[in-house]
Amino acid sequence: MKIGVIGGGQLGRMLALAGTPLGMSFAFLDPAPDACAAALGEHLLGDYSDQAHLRQLADDVDLVTFEFESVPAETVAFLSQFVPVYPSAEALRIARDRWFEKSMFKDLGIPTPEFADIQSQADLDAAVAAIGLPAVLKTRTLGYDGKGQKVLRTAADVEGTFAELGSVACLLEGFVPFTGEVSLIAVRARDGETRFYPLVHNTHDNGILRISIASTDHPLQALAEDYAGRVLKQLDYVGVLAFEFFEVDGGLKANEIAPRVHNSGHWTTEGAECSQFENHLRAVAGLPLGSTAKVGESAMLNFIGEVPAVAKVVAVDDCHLHHYGKAFKAGRKVGHATVRSADRETLDRQVKLVEALING
Amino acid sequence: MKIGVIGGGQLGRMLALAGTPLGMSFAFLDPAPDACAAALGEHLLGDYSDQAHLRQLADDVDLVTFEFESVPAETVAFLSQFVPVYPSAEALRIARDRWFEKSMFKDLGIPTPEFADIQSQADLDAAVAAIGLPAVLKTRTLGYDGKGQKVLRTAADVEGTFAELGSVACLLEGFVPFTGEVSLIAVRARDGETRFYPLVHNTHDNGILRISIASTDHPLQALAEDYAGRVLKQLDYVGVLAFEFFEVDGGLKANEIAPRVHNSGHWTTEGAECSQFENHLRAVAGLPLGSTAKVGESAMLNFIGEVPAVAKVVAVDDCHLHHYGKAFKAGRKVGHATVRSADRETLDRQVKLVEALING
Repeated sequence: MKIGVIGGGQLGRMLALAGTPLGMSFAFLDPAPDACAAALGEHLLGDYSDQAHLRQLADDVDLVTFEFESVPAETVAFLSQFVPVYPSAEALRIARDRWFEKSMFKDLGIPTPEFADIQSQADLDAAVAAIGLPAVLKTRTLGYDGKGQKVLRTAADVEGTFAELGSVACLLEGFVPFTGEVSLIAVRARDGETRFYPLVHNTHDNGILRISIASTDHPLQALAEDYAGRVLKQLDYVGVLAFEFFEVDGGLKANEIAPRVHNSGHWTTEGAECSQFENHLRAVAGLPLGSTAKVGESAMLNFIGEVPAVAKVVAVDDCHLHHYGKAFKAGRKVGHATVRSADRETLDRQVKLVEALING
Repeated sequence: MKIGVIGGGQLGRMLALAGTPLGMSFAFLDPAPDACAAALGEHLLGDYSDQAHLRQLADDVDLVTFEFESVPAETVAFLSQFVPVYPSAEALRIARDRWFEKSMFKDLGIPTPEFADIQSQADLDAAVAAIGLPAVLKTRTLGYDGKGQKVLRTAADVEGTFAELGSVACLLEGFVPFTGEVSLIAVRARDGETRFYPLVHNTHDNGILRISIASTDHPLQALAEDYAGRVLKQLDYVGVLAFEFFEVDGGLKANEIAPRVHNSGHWTTEGAECSQFENHLRAVAGLPLGSTAKVGESAMLNFIGEVPAVAKVVAVDDCHLHHYGKAFKAGRKVGHATVRSADRETLDRQVKLVEALING
């Protein structure tokens, strides 16, 4: 089976590493000549809206999937004429726009921070009056890793801010005094079977994920699965979907979803029976889903900007290096380490060793 | 770091799957246009003795390693002029010739079946008179998976057999009434550090490995490590070396070594902290070795001739498919499954399910 992937970054690369042993081959559409997934499959070097390349891809593969959600709607619609596309155009339409996403949460009875659609500075002023400060203004589309958003704390922060974010459609979100951030990686098969990985505790810094730790018997697991299950069903979703939540007052408020394999699920490569990458491929390919059970205790640490010396990373017991083969650049995700240990005490100790490499 | 691999079959493919997350890239020299490792790196389509291709490979990579031992000595000597080559020319010279191999065992005090060098039918007749029947006649070089050998049970089997095997240099081996076959996967770093995986019980059928089961606290582990350690030191070996033994009278007799990652070590991909593939690459690249400790209980079942329906294989809990992406052909290794379970009872049950798929 040949899989077409829109995007050829590290998520595509890890999909190919998981799918090759299933007998799958891969083609990646990516405009970057140095797309890091290209080492593991065919590379169609072209723009995401280039219909000639899209048609070539559609003709060459059995199905198409995505490694990012900011795909033009026309791209998905065009591809869907010729080849099965998972997740669906509708799932991508909702997930790539914060207004649609938040509106869906509300419609499905899933708690989420207060929010308002912002099409002008006047909208923003009115919404701030209604929701209050602090609040966060985010572009409705194209934001990631803390980009395309601004925290508003005072009236001075509000003034002129609509123009500052590019005078594009935005969403204002009420600030939530959360005690933690967790994510749930879910996978849904073509036949509707759904499985969930254990909740993951995430720590961000400057909007970029730094460390994820897989939980054991998290008291909010069932609630998170309930919320995510509503979304999966609503979207008739196929593939892996990541659901990010704020922990607030012992409950959960939905932050956002990502219709793809997700950074906070990278620990599953070593830390779960079947990784998020393999399960995404199983789902889109119509294969039975794999077990989402944990193997030992796991954490994932991102390498931002650079990967520490390989010899030092692999010298840490229980540590597994995932180097993306990308050029190093400040603020860029260029790799991660999975630490998998027999027990939580050992995990915490080994994680500290990797943190020391990152900070030193 | 870019690694050149002589051979582009499934072993090269699995080396690339293990090395890509370490930030390595790969180039494979293989004369087969459909070499299955080619999906994961550059493919130099050429003969193993083609000096133009060898020079191109040497200029393009940081070091060269091998996925099979039957490499012409001239190839290794030629490459060694331009680029580091692991394992060494001397290790390959010994390992690819059963006479050199067995003589080394004898010199190092490692028990091995009686053997004799056979250069003619007269040599064979004399050796049969000395060693007795049954015995096994094997070509000194180029044999694998039961090819290039014949079991001699009666005088009629002996007559004309030297010509039957091609009138090439052979080895006669006394038949050993073994109670089991085990292998030890060892890895030795450039600095001499050596690690061993747990002994593996192997079952062959028609000379082809069918199933390997990783042992726990095998009573012969220390003895096997002692024998393998002598060979690794003697050859100043760098990389993974597989050592096959017969279990005889509660002891071990050396059968053969393979200077490469080995089919009986494939279970380590899921079943050990660090797989044989990653450890081979760590060794040749001068990185610290990884842990050879088991994760759960593991078995490996080969898919010979064809891979059962993918949907059925992945539906078996604890089962991990490794499809080589090769054309199906009777007698050809085209994939394997690793089964990794929490305990031996579960392992045995899940292995039976995979066996049923193979037989049905």
